[in-house]
Amino acid sequence: MLEEFFNPNGVAIIGASGDASRGGYYLVKNALVGYRGKLFPVNPKYDEIMGVTCYPDVRSIPENFDMAVYFIPAKFLPETIRECSRKGVKAIIIESAGFSETGREGKALQEESLALARRYGIRLWGPNCMGYLDGHSLVAFSFMHLDEWTPYIRPGNVSFIVQSGMLSAGFLIMVLGRGGMGIRRACSIGNKCDVNETELLEYFVNDEHTGVIGCYLESIIDGKRFLDLAAGTDKPVVVLKSGRSDIGARAVLSHTASLSGSGAVYEGAFRQAGIVQVFDLHELMDLARGFSMTGSFTPAAGTAVMTFSGGAAIVTADLLADKGLTLTGFSPETIESLKKIFPAWAETANPLDLWPAVEALGFQPVYIAATEAILSDPAVDSAIIELFARPEGDYGYMEIISGLAKKYAKPVAVWAIGIGSALDRFTSATERLGLPVFAEIRRCADFIAGVRTHYHKMKKH
Amino acid sequence: MLEEFFNPNGVAIIGASGDASRGGYYLVKNALVGYRGKLFPVNPKYDEIMGVTCYPDVRSIPENFDMAVYFIPAKFLPETIRECSRKGVKAIIIESAGFSETGREGKALQEESLALARRYGIRLWGPNCMGYLDGHSLVAFSFMHLDEWTPYIRPGNVSFIVQSGMLSAGFLIMVLGRGGMGIRRACSIGNKCDVNETELLEYFVNDEHTGVIGCYLESIIDGKRFLDLAAGTDKPVVVLKSGRSDIGARAVLSHTASLSGSGAVYEGAFRQAGIVQVFDLHELMDLARGFSMTGSFTPAAGTAVMTFSGGAAIVTADLLADKGLTLTGFSPETIESLKKIFPAWAETANPLDLWPAVEALGFQPVYIAATEAILSDPAVDSAIIELFARPEGDYGYMEIISGLAKKYAKPVAVWAIGIGSALDRFTSATERLGLPVFAEIRRCADFIAGVRTHYHKMKKH
Repeated sequence: MLEEFFNPNGVAIIGASGDASRGGYYLVKNALVGYRGKLFPVNPKYDEIMGVTCYPDVRSIPENFDMAVYFIPAKFLPETIRECSRKGVKAIIIESAGFSETGREGKALQEESLALARRYGIRLWGPNCMGYLDGHSLVAFSFMHLDEWTPYIRPGNVSFIVQSGMLSAGFLIMVLGRGGMGIRRACSIGNKCDVNETELLEYFVNDEHTGVIGCYLESIIDGKRFLDLAAGTDKPVVVLKSGRSDIGARAVLSHTASLSGSGAVYEGAFRQAGIVQVFDLHELMDLARGFSMTGSFTPAAGTAVMTFSGGAAIVTADLLADKGLTLTGFSPETIESLKKIFPAWAETANPLDLWPAVEALGFQPVYIAATEAILSDPAVDSAIIELFARPEGDYGYMEIISGLAKKYAKPVAVWAIGIGSALDRFTSATERLGLPVFAEIRRCADFIAGVRTHYHKMKKH
Repeated sequence: MLEEFFNPNGVAIIGASGDASRGGYYLVKNALVGYRGKLFPVNPKYDEIMGVTCYPDVRSIPENFDMAVYFIPAKFLPETIRECSRKGVKAIIIESAGFSETGREGKALQEESLALARRYGIRLWGPNCMGYLDGHSLVAFSFMHLDEWTPYIRPGNVSFIVQSGMLSAGFLIMVLGRGGMGIRRACSIGNKCDVNETELLEYFVNDEHTGVIGCYLESIIDGKRFLDLAAGTDKPVVVLKSGRSDIGARAVLSHTASLSGSGAVYEGAFRQAGIVQVFDLHELMDLARGFSMTGSFTPAAGTAVMTFSGGAAIVTADLLADKGLTLTGFSPETIESLKKIFPAWAETANPLDLWPAVEALGFQPVYIAATEAILSDPAVDSAIIELFARPEGDYGYMEIISGLAKKYAKPVAVWAIGIGSALDRFTSATERLGLPVFAEIRRCADFIAGVRTHYHKMKKH
């Protein structure tokens, strides 16, 4: 299933270009990074592109091949499908625009092409999309205009299904460049005339290298099957469904010609299926990153909050309450342990402001002792830890804290403040230790809420 | 009013220290940066601290002075007030903790001290606070443990009133270090036994150097007056009121011993007073920064959205709708102008996906032409512009775009994506041009909503 796209034996790039200002140039350049099969650039203007023999048309390619990437004007698609069928092609990724998103004529062209492809047993991906990128093999069949994307990509367990080009190109590279998240495959499906989000979801549910599935969708074609698949997998599924508003739904029509459906209906259905719903682009990426680092979750009474600031403690409690989350009380044993590090007058309740203890005993011993006390508490099932990314770059205590999170198998979200690049360095170091760091407190609350939503589904299995 | 705190003639630092691990060390160090009056460190253990003569007690200070900063254990406060009264002291900033936030005894001590101070005509600031910092003079009476904070502070028009130490120290420095926002004064008021948020709000409403007022508050003591002041000023007032939830309200009690009040009541009252309510710490800073760059606003039909990504366009429309905001239709003249840069098949409606035009004509000419077309449209009163921070660092077109925003006097929020440090450089350059850049689309929507909330008040004047 979909192997003709992900492991093709020979690929033609129809609309390849030697001109660096054209998308067809990047199609060849990107493909050459990771694809190890035979590549056949097609363009009558060139004899070779980047050292690879270029053919004037599909007919002239001297052997059969599995897949074509289509990047010439829309109107040539039906003829190209016919030519491809004679070369044994099983799959075409159509990255050109100019199909159903442009109106009636484009829609007719798209439908005609699909009917033709079905007749020849050829699967279509797109049109109006950016193909896909594989974080393990660095295979990328995409016209994204990025010269040096490979340093930003790390292999990992997150797969994306996105109905927007931007999300699979510049934005994705920016997010991955931040670090902390590795990728399995990012798939841009555009108008999704044939291969759609539901088929890809099924693929990733069964893909041993995928642990987390993130989606940006403007519509869901086979909604029931999509929800069933999400409800039936123990992999977190995080979905940004756009077109929730009237004006957004109208914009969806002109973007990928999809019917977006009612926002309210999706919200309820997602919750029931254990899908973690998000509403903004960075939120999608942040939660995918958080899940990619988080192994397991056993619900108990609620979340614990540890912070260096009474103000941040209260804001965190409010934001958790906004998401319907409970802060648990601590057990007598936990309070006893905390009393050992706190001055007598200080409060040791949840949310826990560590500042009075830090003032007396210093930052690191207090954070370590409090983390042990709190994560060992059977009432606590998850924690938000807020701390100061100290400029001296001393992260030894974070190793101990992440070790405790692993020992007690409880999800921990980190929020840190720090001056200048010290925060970036702290964030990288902490995420390498397996604890997700979020830029805002609200995102910590969103993540912990997402963990609960996902678990709620798991319990029903 | 409050001049005894902001322009004191002579300041004693009671609890000064020569030991760099103590807050009393930073009190002296920070004061020496910008304060040009006489400084009297007080601590029997030292003869001098950082080259300044140190006195064993207040009595030994050989002359009168206006203000004292108190940073020794709480129990000595009443005696210190008496001693200060003999030196003509008019104001004491109490940065020590151990007062009403610690329970009944502390509360009694705080009340006794306040009664005493009133008898001697001495104003109290705090206790349990971090004093204040002046971004113009770099005067800082605060024990914040930050060695090199001065490079991060720029003078500006934003004043903060915060009931949390963190917000006036590490977090504030981090936010200011990001650039884009200059500061007038940041005031940490802690338990606010005497000087409170309402008095400071009145001060900043009348302060010619303050253009925007940001508040983090756990309670509002004189709520009616606070709301009246906010409703009566044409300066934007952005408020994060914490303790909205039950558990948050309980945490407020132990943090600054304040009664937080009902979240729902505040929400309605804030809206009526034209106060821009926010819910997270970075959100407070982001909106203050946005307002600090935004001159005027004349409401018309609604907001315009320009983007390089159909997906981002739809997400933006949804997030604006979540805030109750309308996307306006474009006038026939605007559509005519846009048609000149777009391919015939492409949609030219709001939200406007510029990608089809960018593909044909290139990034910069399209963004410039579209900005002119949209901002000149009488139906458009504000805009969100989404773009790509290109690595080559070519920001010339942003100068033109910011010029158009100024010419048409319409607030513009920018969201950008970019690889690595290119985004930081683009953000700095754009904000120097006077356009606020936000990290997430949602924050652009929050800001535009905030502009409308603030204007709604202005219209009533």
